[in-house]
Amino acid sequence: MYWVKDLKFDANGLVAAVVQDWRTSEVLMLAFMSAESIEKTLETGRMHYWSRSRKKLWLKGETSGHIQSVKSVAVDCDADALLFRVEQVGGACHEGYRSCFFRQVEGDGLKVVGEKVFEPEAVYSTRKG
Amino acid sequence: MYWVKDLKFDANGLVAAVVQDWRTSEVLMLAFMSAESIEKTLETGRMHYWSRSRKKLWLKGETSGHIQSVKSVAVDCDADALLFRVEQVGGACHEGYRSCFFRQVEGDGLKVVGEKVFEPEAVYSTRKG
Repeated sequence: MYWVKDLKFDANGLVAAVVQDWRTSEVLMLAFMSAESIEKTLETGRMHYWSRSRKKLWLKGETSGHIQSVKSVAVDCDADALLFRVEQVGGACHEGYRSCFFRQVEGDGLKVVGEKVFEPEAVYSTRKG
Repeated sequence: MYWVKDLKFDANGLVAAVVQDWRTSEVLMLAFMSAESIEKTLETGRMHYWSRSRKKLWLKGETSGHIQSVKSVAVDCDADALLFRVEQVGGACHEGYRSCFFRQVEGDGLKVVGEKVFEPEAVYSTRKG
């Protein structure tokens, strides 16, 4: 995949990835990817990210089972951001929502507007990792 | 706007912003925002970004006229990414496409799949800035 080598990785070796539901076009999450996580994603067809907090490669759904299967991949004009359309199992957000962007600005505050699709306690307490 | 203060800005004082067409849900671009650019955006209703290359606040459309009017704003679970739904005048991409994500991965390469909506030469040669 020559185009992966041509991406403009930042000082930490990462590019931003926007993840969108392939059917509804809802934006599910934003995360960061290393060259290795991009290669793993392309190889397996399942989204892998670089966790900036845990400083490790991360298969989305490893713990929760909420995997994301890749349907298409696009590269932006500056070659420093990627857009993935995916089929999402369960919810993208570890707080139980379909999208991580479940809070919307209303007036001076934030209001929960996203759809809750699972209970985090039920999902994360019964699995390892 | 108390929630702006609660955002988790990175080491450079930035958060990532995903920008989506409010009617079609097409993802138009990804850019970075400082606290100041978020406040300017909320005040004026027009997208302002932080240019990492030029290291300055930037009103989208300043040169091209291709402004983005904010329709809604969402914050992600980690409070380090924003999602804006906007009405886009012209195209978001400086290369003349409606979306910056106009190249899609096909096989081992990239293919232009995005809609070209203006000629960059015509737009950027007749205006200052």
